[in-house]
Amino acid sequence: MTNLHDVAYQLEQAVRNSEEYAKLQQAYIEVNEDEVAKKMFDNFRELQISLQQKQMSGQEITEEEARNAQQQVEVIQQHEGISRLMESEQQMSMLITDLNKIITKPLEDLYGQPETEEN
Amino acid sequence: MTNLHDVAYQLEQAVRNSEEYAKLQQAYIEVNEDEVAKKMFDNFRELQISLQQKQMSGQEITEEEARNAQQQVEVIQQHEGISRLMESEQQMSMLITDLNKIITKPLEDLYGQPETEEN
Repeated sequence: MTNLHDVAYQLEQAVRNSEEYAKLQQAYIEVNEDEVAKKMFDNFRELQISLQQKQMSGQEITEEEARNAQQQVEVIQQHEGISRLMESEQQMSMLITDLNKIITKPLEDLYGQPETEEN
Repeated sequence: MTNLHDVAYQLEQAVRNSEEYAKLQQAYIEVNEDEVAKKMFDNFRELQISLQQKQMSGQEITEEEARNAQQQVEVIQQHEGISRLMESEQQMSMLITDLNKIITKPLEDLYGQPETEEN
């Protein structure tokens, strides 16, 4: 293992100790301990995954499907615990995106040179 | 900024100082300084991107297009510099995937609990 991996493990530890992770963990446990909330959330997640899979396989999502999904978001977000979980997930996802942007900056520096005038 | 971001910047620095990055950088500069190689590689990259975009927009890639792309890979890989660049890119991509897996391990730990018996 290189120094690189040591630093990556330090970052893993920092993610694990972050406020964002603590909030996510708490929200996740809360929803999972609440049988009704868990069922609502699981059903929604399944719907989300099935729509994503449909999209990735090249099929179009109908207007009705999109409207239905949107309605379901609105319904489940009225549950305080679920709403907190979704918010925590979004914050965690933003954090990870942020970290990824930082660690791939060397690649951006290498490839990001303007060279659009050609071909 | 938090400690988290400090550690992320340390990891960025480690990526920048890595052997993988040095190899990629050198291969990239070599190809870009060789006019013929650069043109071959740019054309191939454009083809790759256009096929990806086609796929992502839900259109199917025809057998002929796939065969054509495969043939182009074989042709350009005969160029030593390009072949080295593609190999370096793949190694860098594996490294980044590896780092991502490490830093998102806390999420895997949280969500990865077996819970398949339900619904």
